[in-house]
Amino acid sequence: MHQDLDQFSVTEAVLEQMADTPDARLKLIMESLVKHAHAFARDVDLKPEEWLAGIAFLTQVGQACTPSRQETILLSDTLGFSALVNILAANRQQSKATDPSLLGPFYRAAAPQKQIGDSIAEAADAPELVFYGQVQNGAGHGIPHAEVTVWQTDAHGFYDMQLHGEEKMDHRATFITDANGNFHFRTVRPLGYYIPMDGPVGRMIKAQQRHGCRPAHIHFLIGADGHQELVTSLYLSDDQYIGSDVVFGVSRSLIVTPKADPNSPIPELEAIHYDFMLAPSGSCGAGRVGADPSQLVNV
Amino acid sequence: MHQDLDQFSVTEAVLEQMADTPDARLKLIMESLVKHAHAFARDVDLKPEEWLAGIAFLTQVGQACTPSRQETILLSDTLGFSALVNILAANRQQSKATDPSLLGPFYRAAAPQKQIGDSIAEAADAPELVFYGQVQNGAGHGIPHAEVTVWQTDAHGFYDMQLHGEEKMDHRATFITDANGNFHFRTVRPLGYYIPMDGPVGRMIKAQQRHGCRPAHIHFLIGADGHQELVTSLYLSDDQYIGSDVVFGVSRSLIVTPKADPNSPIPELEAIHYDFMLAPSGSCGAGRVGADPSQLVNV
Repeated sequence: MHQDLDQFSVTEAVLEQMADTPDARLKLIMESLVKHAHAFARDVDLKPEEWLAGIAFLTQVGQACTPSRQETILLSDTLGFSALVNILAANRQQSKATDPSLLGPFYRAAAPQKQIGDSIAEAADAPELVFYGQVQNGAGHGIPHAEVTVWQTDAHGFYDMQLHGEEKMDHRATFITDANGNFHFRTVRPLGYYIPMDGPVGRMIKAQQRHGCRPAHIHFLIGADGHQELVTSLYLSDDQYIGSDVVFGVSRSLIVTPKADPNSPIPELEAIHYDFMLAPSGSCGAGRVGADPSQLVNV
Repeated sequence: MHQDLDQFSVTEAVLEQMADTPDARLKLIMESLVKHAHAFARDVDLKPEEWLAGIAFLTQVGQACTPSRQETILLSDTLGFSALVNILAANRQQSKATDPSLLGPFYRAAAPQKQIGDSIAEAADAPELVFYGQVQNGAGHGIPHAEVTVWQTDAHGFYDMQLHGEEKMDHRATFITDANGNFHFRTVRPLGYYIPMDGPVGRMIKAQQRHGCRPAHIHFLIGADGHQELVTSLYLSDDQYIGSDVVFGVSRSLIVTPKADPNSPIPELEAIHYDFMLAPSGSCGAGRVGADPSQLVNV
Protein backbone atom coordinates (compact mmCIF):
# COMPACT_ATOMS: atom_id res chain seq x y z
CA MET A 1 0.00 0.00 0.00
CA HIS A 2 1.47 3.32 -1.06
CA GLN A 3 -0.70 5.86 0.66
CA ASP A 4 0.21 9.22 2.12
CA LEU A 5 3.23 9.38 -0.14
CA ASP A 6 5.72 12.13 0.50
CA GLN A 7 8.05 13.79 -1.99
CA PHE A 8 10.60 10.98 -1.64
CA SER A 9 8.42 7.91 -1.09
CA VAL A 10 6.41 8.71 -4.23
CA THR A 11 9.58 8.00 -6.23
CA GLU A 12 9.97 4.63 -4.49
CA ALA A 13 6.31 3.82 -5.20
CA VAL A 14 6.82 4.44 -8.92
CA LEU A 15 9.97 2.29 -9.02
CA GLU A 16 8.14 -0.48 -7.18
CA GLN A 17 5.27 -0.40 -9.68
CA MET A 18 7.79 -0.71 -12.55
CA ALA A 19 9.79 -3.48 -10.87
CA ASP A 20 8.33 -6.30 -12.97
CA THR A 21 9.37 -4.83 -16.33
CA PRO A 22 10.64 -7.91 -18.24
CA ASP A 23 13.08 -6.00 -20.50
CA ALA A 24 16.05 -5.34 -18.19
CA ARG A 25 17.37 -2.46 -20.28
CA LEU A 26 13.94 -0.73 -20.42
CA LYS A 27 13.65 -1.20 -16.66
CA LEU A 28 17.06 0.39 -16.06
CA ILE A 29 16.35 3.33 -18.38
CA MET A 30 12.91 4.04 -16.92
CA GLU A 31 14.17 3.77 -13.33
CA SER A 32 16.90 6.32 -14.04
CA LEU A 33 14.47 8.55 -15.92
CA VAL A 34 11.97 8.56 -13.04
CA LYS A 35 14.69 9.24 -10.46
CA HIS A 36 16.12 12.16 -12.43
CA ALA A 37 12.72 13.60 -13.38
CA HIS A 38 11.57 13.52 -9.74
CA ALA A 39 14.87 14.98 -8.51
CA PHE A 40 14.41 17.82 -11.02
CA ALA A 41 10.89 18.60 -9.69
CA ARG A 42 12.15 18.56 -6.09
CA ASP A 43 15.26 20.64 -6.87
CA VAL A 44 13.27 23.50 -8.38
CA ASP A 45 10.17 22.94 -6.17
CA LEU A 46 8.12 22.85 -9.36
CA LYS A 47 4.80 24.75 -9.12
CA PRO A 48 1.56 23.40 -10.61
CA GLU A 49 1.34 26.28 -13.09
CA GLU A 50 4.94 25.61 -14.19
CA TRP A 51 4.13 21.91 -14.58
CA LEU A 52 1.14 22.87 -16.72
CA ALA A 53 3.30 25.15 -18.89
CA GLY A 54 5.67 22.19 -19.36
CA ILE A 55 2.79 19.87 -20.31
CA ALA A 56 1.47 22.40 -22.83
CA PHE A 57 4.99 22.89 -24.24
CA LEU A 58 5.68 19.16 -24.70
CA THR A 59 2.24 18.67 -26.25
CA GLN A 60 2.93 21.48 -28.71
CA VAL A 61 6.35 20.00 -29.57
CA GLY A 62 4.71 16.67 -30.46
CA GLN A 63 1.94 18.34 -32.41
CA ALA A 64 4.40 20.49 -34.38
CA CYS A 65 5.90 17.32 -35.92
CA THR A 66 4.98 16.53 -39.51
CA PRO A 67 6.46 14.22 -42.14
CA SER A 68 8.85 17.07 -43.01
CA ARG A 69 9.47 18.58 -39.58
CA GLN A 70 10.78 16.93 -36.39
CA GLU A 71 10.32 19.36 -33.50
CA THR A 72 11.09 16.71 -30.84
CA ILE A 73 14.57 16.14 -32.30
CA LEU A 74 14.98 19.91 -32.50
CA LEU A 75 14.21 20.15 -28.78
CA SER A 76 16.74 17.41 -28.00
CA ASP A 77 19.31 19.15 -30.23
CA THR A 78 18.88 22.61 -28.68
CA LEU A 79 19.22 21.19 -25.15
CA GLY A 80 22.54 19.57 -26.09
CA PHE A 81 20.97 16.16 -25.46
CA SER A 82 21.58 14.84 -28.99
CA ALA A 83 25.21 16.03 -28.90
CA LEU A 84 25.66 14.22 -25.59
CA VAL A 85 24.24 10.95 -26.99
CA ASN A 86 26.63 11.36 -29.93
CA ILE A 87 29.58 11.86 -27.59
CA LEU A 88 28.64 8.80 -25.53
CA ALA A 89 28.44 6.75 -28.73
CA ALA A 90 31.84 7.98 -29.94
CA ASN A 91 33.36 7.17 -26.53
CA ARG A 92 32.17 3.57 -26.82
CA GLN A 93 33.68 3.24 -30.27
CA GLN A 94 37.36 3.40 -29.28
CA SER A 95 38.72 3.87 -32.77
CA LYS A 96 40.35 6.69 -34.67
CA ALA A 97 37.30 7.03 -36.91
CA THR A 98 36.13 10.50 -37.99
CA ASP A 99 34.25 12.35 -35.23
CA PRO A 100 30.49 12.07 -35.56
CA SER A 101 28.11 15.02 -35.57
CA LEU A 102 24.33 15.39 -35.48
CA LEU A 103 22.07 13.87 -38.11
CA GLY A 104 19.73 16.78 -37.42
CA PRO A 105 16.08 17.20 -38.35
CA PHE A 106 16.65 17.60 -42.10
CA TYR A 107 17.91 14.14 -42.99
CA ARG A 108 15.69 12.29 -45.46
CA ALA A 109 15.90 8.72 -46.61
CA ALA A 110 16.19 7.97 -50.36
CA ALA A 111 18.14 11.01 -51.55
CA PRO A 112 18.63 11.00 -55.35
CA GLN A 113 21.53 8.83 -56.56
CA LYS A 114 24.08 10.90 -58.47
CA GLN A 115 27.34 10.24 -60.38
CA ILE A 116 30.73 11.34 -59.10
CA GLY A 117 31.33 14.90 -60.30
CA ASP A 118 27.62 15.82 -60.51
CA SER A 119 26.25 18.90 -58.78
CA ILE A 120 23.86 18.31 -55.89
CA ALA A 121 22.18 21.70 -56.57
CA GLU A 122 19.43 21.52 -59.16
CA ALA A 123 20.05 25.14 -60.17
CA ALA A 124 23.15 26.70 -58.61
CA ASP A 125 22.44 30.43 -58.17
CA ALA A 126 25.72 31.13 -56.36
CA PRO A 127 29.41 30.44 -57.08
CA GLU A 128 30.05 26.70 -57.15
CA LEU A 129 32.61 24.88 -55.11
CA VAL A 130 33.83 21.31 -55.26
CA PHE A 131 34.00 18.83 -52.43
CA TYR A 132 36.39 15.92 -52.75
CA GLY A 133 37.57 13.24 -50.40
CA GLN A 134 38.24 9.60 -49.75
CA VAL A 135 36.35 7.13 -47.56
CA GLN A 136 39.00 5.14 -45.68
CA ASN A 137 39.18 2.11 -43.45
CA GLY A 138 41.00 2.10 -40.12
CA ALA A 139 44.32 1.47 -41.90
CA GLY A 140 43.86 4.58 -44.08
CA HIS A 141 43.09 2.62 -47.27
CA GLY A 142 40.28 3.73 -49.56
CA ILE A 143 37.01 1.77 -49.39
CA PRO A 144 35.53 1.17 -52.85
CA HIS A 145 31.75 1.30 -53.34
CA ALA A 146 31.04 3.05 -50.05
CA GLU A 147 27.71 4.88 -50.03
CA VAL A 148 27.96 8.59 -49.21
CA THR A 149 24.77 10.61 -48.63
CA VAL A 150 25.23 14.38 -48.45
CA TRP A 151 22.73 17.14 -47.69
CA GLN A 152 23.00 20.85 -47.02
CA THR A 153 21.13 24.13 -47.32
CA ASP A 154 20.97 26.07 -50.55
CA ALA A 155 23.02 29.26 -50.90
CA HIS A 156 20.28 31.15 -48.98
CA GLY A 157 20.26 28.91 -45.91
CA PHE A 158 17.17 26.78 -46.64
CA TYR A 159 16.79 23.02 -46.83
CA ASP A 160 14.60 21.62 -49.59
CA MET A 161 11.92 20.49 -47.12
CA GLN A 162 11.62 24.02 -45.71
CA LEU A 163 10.90 25.34 -49.21
CA HIS A 164 9.02 22.42 -50.75
CA GLY A 165 7.84 20.17 -47.90
CA GLU A 166 7.95 16.56 -49.03
CA GLU A 167 7.39 17.47 -52.68
CA LYS A 168 10.91 17.81 -53.94
CA MET A 169 14.51 16.94 -53.01
CA ASP A 170 17.37 19.35 -53.74
CA HIS A 171 20.87 19.97 -52.37
CA ARG A 172 21.03 16.35 -51.30
CA ALA A 173 22.32 13.23 -53.08
CA THR A 174 23.87 9.81 -52.64
CA PHE A 175 27.21 8.93 -54.26
CA ILE A 176 29.13 5.65 -54.51
CA THR A 177 32.90 5.87 -54.09
CA ASP A 178 35.14 4.71 -56.93
CA ALA A 179 37.58 1.78 -56.90
CA ASN A 180 39.96 3.82 -54.71
CA GLY A 181 37.33 5.04 -52.27
CA ASN A 182 37.29 8.55 -53.75
CA PHE A 183 34.32 10.73 -54.60
CA HIS A 184 33.67 14.38 -55.43
CA PHE A 185 30.71 16.57 -56.21
CA ARG A 186 29.89 20.16 -57.10
CA THR A 187 27.73 22.25 -54.83
CA VAL A 188 27.13 25.78 -53.63
CA ARG A 189 28.42 27.15 -50.37
CA PRO A 190 25.86 26.31 -47.64
CA LEU A 191 24.72 29.14 -45.42
CA GLY A 192 24.36 29.14 -41.64
CA TYR A 193 20.74 29.36 -40.65
CA TYR A 194 18.24 29.79 -37.89
CA ILE A 195 16.66 26.62 -36.63
CA PRO A 196 12.85 26.76 -37.20
CA MET A 197 11.82 29.61 -34.90
CA ASP A 198 8.05 29.55 -35.53
CA GLY A 199 7.30 26.60 -33.22
CA PRO A 200 7.51 25.85 -29.49
CA VAL A 201 11.29 25.22 -29.58
CA GLY A 202 11.80 28.57 -31.33
CA ARG A 203 9.79 30.26 -28.57
CA MET A 204 12.07 28.60 -25.99
CA ILE A 205 15.19 29.81 -27.81
CA LYS A 206 13.80 33.36 -27.91
CA ALA A 207 12.87 33.25 -24.21
CA GLN A 208 16.49 32.28 -23.53
CA GLN A 209 17.81 35.13 -25.73
CA ARG A 210 19.90 32.66 -27.76
CA HIS A 211 20.74 33.58 -31.36
CA GLY A 212 19.22 30.35 -32.66
CA CYS A 213 21.80 29.89 -35.43
CA ARG A 214 23.82 26.99 -36.70
CA PRO A 215 27.12 27.67 -38.47
CA ALA A 216 27.22 26.71 -42.16
CA HIS A 217 27.82 22.99 -42.67
CA ILE A 218 27.46 20.02 -44.99
CA HIS A 219 25.99 16.75 -43.66
CA PHE A 220 27.43 13.33 -44.49
CA LEU A 221 26.08 9.85 -43.81
CA ILE A 222 28.57 7.22 -44.95
CA GLY A 223 28.15 3.45 -45.00
CA ALA A 224 30.28 0.57 -46.27
CA ASP A 225 30.20 -3.21 -45.85
CA GLY A 226 32.15 -4.31 -42.79
CA HIS A 227 32.18 -0.81 -41.31
CA GLN A 228 30.17 1.28 -38.87
CA GLU A 229 27.91 3.85 -40.40
CA LEU A 230 29.34 7.35 -39.90
CA VAL A 231 27.04 10.34 -39.35
CA THR A 232 28.89 13.62 -39.37
CA SER A 233 29.02 17.19 -40.72
CA LEU A 234 31.76 19.51 -41.87
CA TYR A 235 31.60 23.12 -40.64
CA LEU A 236 32.89 26.19 -42.48
CA SER A 237 35.62 27.92 -40.48
CA ASP A 238 34.68 31.54 -41.24
CA ASP A 239 31.08 31.34 -39.99
CA GLN A 240 30.45 33.81 -37.15
CA TYR A 241 28.59 31.13 -35.16
CA ILE A 242 31.32 28.46 -35.44
CA GLY A 243 31.84 28.72 -31.65
CA SER A 244 28.21 28.99 -30.52
CA ASP A 245 26.22 26.44 -32.55
CA VAL A 246 22.67 26.40 -31.14
CA VAL A 247 22.69 22.57 -31.28
CA PHE A 248 26.28 22.01 -30.08
CA GLY A 249 27.34 19.96 -33.13
CA VAL A 250 30.76 21.46 -33.92
CA SER A 251 34.01 19.59 -33.22
CA ARG A 252 37.40 21.13 -34.01
CA SER A 253 38.28 18.15 -36.21
CA LEU A 254 35.24 18.82 -38.43
CA ILE A 255 36.05 22.43 -39.35
CA VAL A 256 37.03 23.04 -42.99
CA THR A 257 37.98 26.04 -45.16
CA PRO A 258 37.12 26.21 -48.88
CA LYS A 259 40.15 27.35 -50.87
CA ALA A 260 41.97 27.24 -54.18
CA ASP A 261 43.43 23.75 -54.51
CA PRO A 262 45.54 22.54 -57.46
CA ASN A 263 45.04 18.92 -56.39
CA SER A 264 41.26 19.19 -56.65
CA PRO A 265 39.49 17.20 -59.40
CA ILE A 266 38.00 20.55 -60.57
CA PRO A 267 40.87 22.98 -59.90
CA GLU A 268 39.08 26.03 -61.33
CA LEU A 269 36.62 25.99 -58.37
CA GLU A 270 37.28 26.61 -54.67
CA ALA A 271 37.59 23.22 -53.02
CA ILE A 272 36.87 21.53 -49.71
CA HIS A 273 38.98 18.43 -49.19
CA TYR A 274 38.23 15.99 -46.37
CA ASP A 275 38.92 12.28 -45.95
CA PHE A 276 36.60 10.22 -43.76
CA MET A 277 37.69 7.23 -41.71
CA LEU A 278 35.16 4.52 -40.83
CA ALA A 279 35.39 2.23 -37.80
CA PRO A 280 35.21 -1.53 -38.40
CA SER A 281 31.76 -2.97 -37.74
CA GLY A 282 33.17 -5.23 -35.03
CA SER A 283 33.47 -2.19 -32.76
CA CYS A 284 30.57 -0.89 -30.75
CA GLY A 285 28.31 1.05 -33.06
CA ALA A 286 27.88 4.81 -32.93
CA GLY A 287 24.45 4.66 -34.52
CA ARG A 288 22.35 7.47 -35.92
CA VAL A 289 21.40 10.24 -33.52
CA GLY A 290 18.52 11.30 -35.76
CA ALA A 291 15.97 9.99 -38.20
CA ASP A 292 13.91 10.86 -41.25
CA PRO A 293 10.98 12.92 -39.84
CA SER A 294 8.53 11.17 -42.13
CA GLN A 295 9.25 7.94 -40.25
CA LEU A 296 8.50 9.45 -36.85
CA VAL A 297 4.93 10.68 -37.12
CA ASN A 298 1.71 8.70 -37.10
CA VAL A 299 3.51 5.50 -36.17
CA MET B 1 34.47 28.41 -28.23
CA HIS B 2 32.91 25.09 -27.26
CA GLN B 3 34.57 22.61 -29.52
CA ASP B 4 35.61 19.04 -28.85
CA LEU B 5 33.03 18.85 -26.10
CA ASP B 6 33.14 15.81 -23.86
CA GLN B 7 30.25 14.21 -21.98
CA PHE B 8 30.60 16.71 -19.11
CA SER B 9 31.69 19.89 -20.88
CA VAL B 10 28.72 19.64 -23.25
CA THR B 11 26.47 20.25 -20.25
CA GLU B 12 28.47 23.35 -19.32
CA ALA B 13 28.25 24.58 -22.91
CA VAL B 14 24.46 24.34 -22.83
CA LEU B 15 24.22 26.16 -19.49
CA GLU B 16 26.52 28.89 -20.82
CA GLN B 17 24.34 29.37 -23.91
CA MET B 18 21.26 29.74 -21.66
CA ALA B 19 23.00 32.09 -19.22
CA ASP B 20 21.36 35.26 -20.56
CA THR B 21 17.77 34.08 -20.01
CA PRO B 22 16.05 37.19 -18.61
CA ASP B 23 13.36 35.32 -16.62
CA ALA B 24 15.27 34.12 -13.54
CA ARG B 25 12.76 31.36 -12.76
CA LEU B 26 12.82 30.01 -16.33
CA LYS B 27 16.61 30.09 -16.21
CA LEU B 28 16.69 28.10 -12.95
CA ILE B 29 14.18 25.52 -14.20
CA MET B 30 15.92 25.00 -17.54
CA GLU B 31 19.36 24.76 -15.92
CA SER B 32 18.12 22.04 -13.57
CA LEU B 33 16.29 20.28 -16.41
CA VAL B 34 19.42 20.20 -18.60
CA LYS B 35 21.62 18.97 -15.74
CA HIS B 36 19.22 16.16 -14.84
CA ALA B 37 18.50 15.20 -18.46
CA HIS B 38 22.22 14.98 -19.22
CA ALA B 39 22.94 13.08 -16.00
CA PHE B 40 20.22 10.59 -17.00
CA ALA B 41 21.84 10.01 -20.43
CA ARG B 42 25.28 9.55 -18.85
CA ASP B 43 23.97 7.26 -16.08
CA VAL B 44 22.41 4.80 -18.50
CA ASP B 45 24.97 5.40 -21.28
CA LEU B 46 22.05 6.05 -23.61
CA LYS B 47 22.45 4.48 -27.07
CA PRO B 48 21.46 6.31 -30.27
CA GLU B 49 18.75 3.74 -31.03
CA GLU B 50 17.34 4.17 -27.51
CA TRP B 51 17.41 7.94 -27.93
CA LEU B 52 15.53 7.52 -31.20
CA ALA B 53 12.91 5.30 -29.53
CA GLY B 54 12.47 8.03 -26.92
CA ILE B 55 12.08 10.72 -29.60
CA ALA B 56 9.48 8.64 -31.41
CA PHE B 57 7.66 7.95 -28.14
CA LEU B 58 7.50 11.62 -27.08
CA THR B 59 6.39 12.62 -30.58
CA GLN B 60 3.60 10.04 -30.45
CA VAL B 61 2.52 11.26 -26.99
CA GLY B 62 2.14 14.81 -28.32
CA GLN B 63 0.35 13.64 -31.43
CA ALA B 64 -2.10 11.49 -29.43
CA CYS B 65 -3.46 14.66 -27.75
CA THR B 66 -6.85 15.91 -28.91
CA PRO B 67 -9.40 18.32 -27.44
CA SER B 68 -10.79 15.36 -25.47
CA ARG B 69 -7.58 13.44 -24.69
CA GLN B 70 -4.41 14.61 -22.93
CA GLU B 71 -1.73 11.93 -23.37
CA THR B 72 1.09 14.17 -22.07
CA ILE B 73 -0.69 14.57 -18.71
CA LEU B 74 -1.28 10.82 -18.73
CA LEU B 75 2.45 10.25 -19.15
CA SER B 76 3.21 12.63 -16.28
CA ASP B 77 0.56 10.89 -14.14
CA THR B 78 1.80 7.35 -14.79
CA LEU B 79 5.40 8.33 -13.97
CA GLY B 80 4.26 9.71 -10.60
CA PHE B 81 5.41 13.16 -11.70
CA SER B 82 1.98 14.80 -11.31
CA ALA B 83 1.56 13.26 -7.83
CA LEU B 84 4.97 14.65 -6.86
CA VAL B 85 4.05 18.16 -8.05
CA ASN B 86 0.84 17.85 -6.01
CA ILE B 87 2.80 16.81 -2.92
CA LEU B 88 5.25 19.70 -3.33
CA ALA B 89 2.30 22.11 -3.60
CA ALA B 90 0.61 20.68 -0.50
CA ASN B 91 3.91 20.95 1.43
CA ARG B 92 4.09 24.68 0.63
CA GLN B 93 0.55 25.22 1.85
CA GLN B 94 1.18 24.59 5.55
CA SER B 95 -2.49 24.35 6.55
CA LYS B 96 -4.81 21.59 7.66
CA ALA B 97 -6.74 21.80 4.39
CA THR B 98 -8.04 18.61 2.76
CA ASP B 99 -5.29 16.67 0.93
CA PRO B 100 -5.19 17.36 -2.79
CA SER B 101 -5.26 14.68 -5.47
CA LEU B 102 -4.80 14.70 -9.24
CA LEU B 103 -7.03 16.70 -11.54
CA GLY B 104 -6.39 13.98 -14.11
CA PRO B 105 -6.96 14.03 -17.86
CA PHE B 106 -10.78 13.98 -17.68
CA TYR B 107 -11.46 17.37 -16.13
CA ARG B 108 -13.51 19.68 -18.36
CA ALA B 109 -14.32 23.33 -17.86
CA ALA B 110 -18.00 24.44 -17.80
CA ALA B 111 -19.68 21.35 -16.32
CA PRO B 112 -23.49 21.73 -16.19
CA GLN B 113 -24.79 23.71 -13.20
CA LYS B 114 -27.16 21.60 -11.06
CA GLN B 115 -29.31 22.12 -7.96
CA ILE B 116 -28.48 20.54 -4.61
CA GLY B 117 -30.07 17.09 -4.50
CA ASP B 118 -29.99 16.56 -8.29
CA SER B 119 -28.42 13.49 -9.85
CA ILE B 120 -25.27 14.02 -11.89
CA ALA B 121 -26.08 10.91 -13.97
CA GLU B 122 -28.35 11.63 -16.94
CA ALA B 123 -29.76 8.09 -16.80
CA ALA B 124 -28.67 6.08 -13.78
CA ASP B 125 -28.51 2.41 -14.85
CA ALA B 126 -27.11 1.20 -11.52
CA PRO B 127 -28.13 1.56 -7.85
CA GLU B 128 -27.92 5.20 -6.82
CA LEU B 129 -26.00 6.55 -3.88
CA VAL B 130 -25.93 9.96 -2.30
CA PHE B 131 -22.92 12.10 -1.61
CA TYR B 132 -23.20 14.77 1.07
CA GLY B 133 -20.76 17.06 2.77
CA GLN B 134 -19.81 20.53 3.86
CA VAL B 135 -17.24 22.94 2.48
CA GLN B 136 -15.46 24.43 5.51
CA ASN B 137 -12.96 27.17 6.22
CA GLY B 138 -9.86 26.63 8.32
CA ALA B 139 -11.91 27.09 11.53
CA GLY B 140 -14.30 24.31 10.52
CA HIS B 141 -17.19 26.65 9.70
CA GLY B 142 -19.30 26.08 6.60
CA ILE B 143 -18.61 28.33 3.57
CA PRO B 144 -21.84 29.45 1.86
CA HIS B 145 -21.96 29.75 -1.94
CA ALA B 146 -18.79 27.76 -2.52
CA GLU B 147 -18.58 26.28 -6.04
CA VAL B 148 -18.16 22.51 -6.14
CA THR B 149 -17.43 20.79 -9.46
CA VAL B 150 -17.66 16.98 -9.43
CA TRP B 151 -16.90 14.44 -12.13
CA GLN B 152 -16.62 10.67 -12.23
CA THR B 153 -17.04 7.64 -14.47
CA ASP B 154 -20.40 6.08 -15.14
CA ALA B 155 -21.27 2.75 -13.49
CA HIS B 156 -19.28 0.95 -16.21
CA GLY B 157 -16.03 2.86 -15.72
CA PHE B 158 -16.24 5.34 -18.62
CA TYR B 159 -16.01 9.12 -18.60
CA ASP B 160 -18.39 11.04 -20.86
CA MET B 161 -15.57 12.15 -23.14
CA GLN B 162 -14.48 8.55 -23.71
CA LEU B 163 -18.00 7.69 -24.87
CA HIS B 164 -19.06 10.91 -26.57
CA GLY B 165 -15.86 12.93 -27.22
CA GLU B 166 -16.64 16.62 -26.81
CA GLU B 167 -20.29 16.17 -27.81
CA LYS B 168 -21.94 15.63 -24.48
CA MET B 169 -21.33 16.02 -20.74
CA ASP B 170 -22.56 13.43 -18.22
CA HIS B 171 -21.61 12.31 -14.73
CA ARG B 172 -20.25 15.76 -14.05
CA ALA B 173 -21.85 18.90 -12.60
CA THR B 174 -21.23 22.07 -10.64
CA PHE B 175 -23.10 22.78 -7.37
CA ILE B 176 -23.24 25.86 -5.14
CA THR B 177 -23.21 25.20 -1.39
CA ASP B 178 -26.17 26.43 0.70
CA ALA B 179 -26.12 29.06 3.47
CA ASN B 180 -24.40 26.57 5.79
CA GLY B 181 -21.79 25.39 3.26
CA ASN B 182 -23.60 22.09 2.70
CA PHE B 183 -24.33 20.32 -0.57
CA HIS B 184 -25.44 16.88 -1.69
CA PHE B 185 -26.12 15.08 -4.95
CA ARG B 186 -27.25 11.70 -6.25
CA THR B 187 -24.99 9.62 -8.41
CA VAL B 188 -24.07 6.04 -9.28
CA ARG B 189 -21.10 4.22 -7.86
CA PRO B 190 -18.08 5.02 -10.06
CA LEU B 191 -16.01 2.11 -11.29
CA GLY B 192 -12.25 1.75 -11.31
CA TYR B 193 -10.91 1.79 -14.83
CA TYR B 194 -7.96 1.32 -17.10
CA ILE B 195 -6.25 4.47 -18.20
CA PRO B 196 -6.43 4.77 -22.02
CA MET B 197 -4.31 1.80 -23.15
CA ASP B 198 -4.53 2.31 -26.93
CA GLY B 199 -1.86 5.02 -27.12
CA PRO B 200 1.89 5.34 -26.48
CA VAL B 201 1.46 5.60 -22.69
CA GLY B 202 -0.65 2.44 -22.71
CA ARG B 203 2.14 0.67 -24.62
CA MET B 204 4.61 1.80 -21.94
CA ILE B 205 2.34 0.49 -19.16
CA LYS B 206 2.04 -2.88 -20.92
CA ALA B 207 5.82 -3.09 -21.48
CA GLN B 208 6.20 -2.56 -17.72
CA GLN B 209 3.61 -5.26 -16.93
CA ARG B 210 1.61 -2.80 -14.81
CA HIS B 211 -2.11 -3.39 -14.43
CA GLY B 212 -2.92 0.12 -15.69
CA CYS B 213 -5.91 0.60 -13.35
CA ARG B 214 -7.10 3.41 -11.17
CA PRO B 215 -9.23 2.58 -8.12
CA ALA B 216 -12.82 3.91 -8.26
CA HIS B 217 -13.01 7.60 -7.30
CA ILE B 218 -15.01 10.82 -7.54
CA HIS B 219 -13.22 14.06 -8.50
CA PHE B 220 -13.86 17.38 -6.76
CA LEU B 221 -12.71 20.89 -7.66
CA ILE B 222 -13.84 23.36 -5.00
CA GLY B 223 -13.50 27.14 -4.99
CA ALA B 224 -14.73 29.90 -2.68
CA ASP B 225 -13.93 33.59 -2.29
CA GLY B 226 -11.03 34.15 0.05
CA HIS B 227 -9.87 30.53 -0.20
CA GLN B 228 -7.42 28.43 -2.18
CA GLU B 229 -8.94 26.27 -4.86
CA LEU B 230 -8.94 22.60 -3.80
CA VAL B 231 -8.44 19.83 -6.35
CA THR B 232 -8.97 16.39 -4.88
CA SER B 233 -10.65 13.00 -5.27
CA LEU B 234 -12.31 10.54 -2.93
CA TYR B 235 -11.39 6.86 -3.37
CA LEU B 236 -13.66 3.89 -2.63
CA SER B 237 -12.12 1.70 0.05
CA ASP B 238 -13.11 -1.69 -1.34
CA ASP B 239 -11.50 -1.28 -4.75
CA GLN B 240 -8.87 -3.97 -5.39
CA TYR B 241 -6.45 -1.34 -6.75
CA ILE B 242 -6.73 1.06 -3.81
CA GLY B 243 -3.07 0.33 -2.95
CA SER B 244 -1.63 0.31 -6.46
CA ASP B 245 -3.16 3.26 -8.32
CA VAL B 246 -1.40 3.51 -11.70
CA VAL B 247 -1.18 7.29 -11.27
CA PHE B 248 -0.29 7.36 -7.54
CA GLY B 249 -3.22 9.62 -6.57
CA VAL B 250 -4.52 7.87 -3.41
CA SER B 251 -3.98 9.31 0.09
CA ARG B 252 -5.25 7.54 3.20
CA SER B 253 -7.25 10.64 4.20
CA LEU B 254 -9.17 10.53 0.90
CA ILE B 255 -10.52 6.97 1.22
CA VAL B 256 -14.28 6.64 1.77
CA THR B 257 -16.79 3.82 2.20
CA PRO B 258 -20.42 4.10 0.98
CA LYS B 259 -22.80 2.88 3.70
CA ALA B 260 -26.26 3.15 5.19
CA ASP B 261 -26.41 6.49 7.01
CA PRO B 262 -29.44 7.76 8.97
CA ASN B 263 -27.98 11.30 8.98
CA SER B 264 -27.87 11.45 5.18
CA PRO B 265 -30.24 13.86 3.40
CA ILE B 266 -31.55 10.85 1.44
CA PRO B 267 -31.41 8.07 4.08
CA GLU B 268 -32.91 5.39 1.83
CA LEU B 269 -29.74 5.38 -0.33
CA GLU B 270 -26.22 4.32 0.57
CA ALA B 271 -24.28 7.45 1.42
CA ILE B 272 -20.76 8.85 1.19
CA HIS B 273 -20.17 11.64 3.68
CA TYR B 274 -17.08 13.84 3.45
CA ASP B 275 -16.39 17.39 4.59
CA PHE B 276 -13.77 19.45 2.73
CA MET B 277 -11.57 22.08 4.34
CA LEU B 278 -10.18 24.92 2.23
CA ALA B 279 -7.00 26.86 2.98
CA PRO B 280 -7.23 30.65 3.16
CA SER B 281 -6.08 32.35 -0.03
CA GLY B 282 -3.35 34.16 1.86
CA SER B 283 -1.41 30.88 2.02
CA CYS B 284 0.78 29.71 -0.83
CA GLY B 285 -1.46 28.24 -3.52
CA ALA B 286 -1.61 24.56 -4.32
CA GLY B 287 -2.81 25.17 -7.85
CA ARG B 288 -4.28 22.75 -10.36
CA VAL B 289 -2.06 19.86 -11.39
CA GLY B 290 -4.04 19.33 -14.58
CA ALA B 291 -6.09 21.14 -17.18
CA ASP B 292 -8.98 20.81 -19.59
CA PRO B 293 -7.47 18.91 -22.57
CA SER B 294 -9.31 21.15 -25.04
CA GLN B 295 -7.20 24.06 -23.80
CA LEU B 296 -3.90 22.27 -24.38
CA VAL B 297 -3.88 21.45 -28.08
CA ASN B 298 -3.33 23.75 -31.04
CA VAL B 299 -2.32 26.62 -28.81
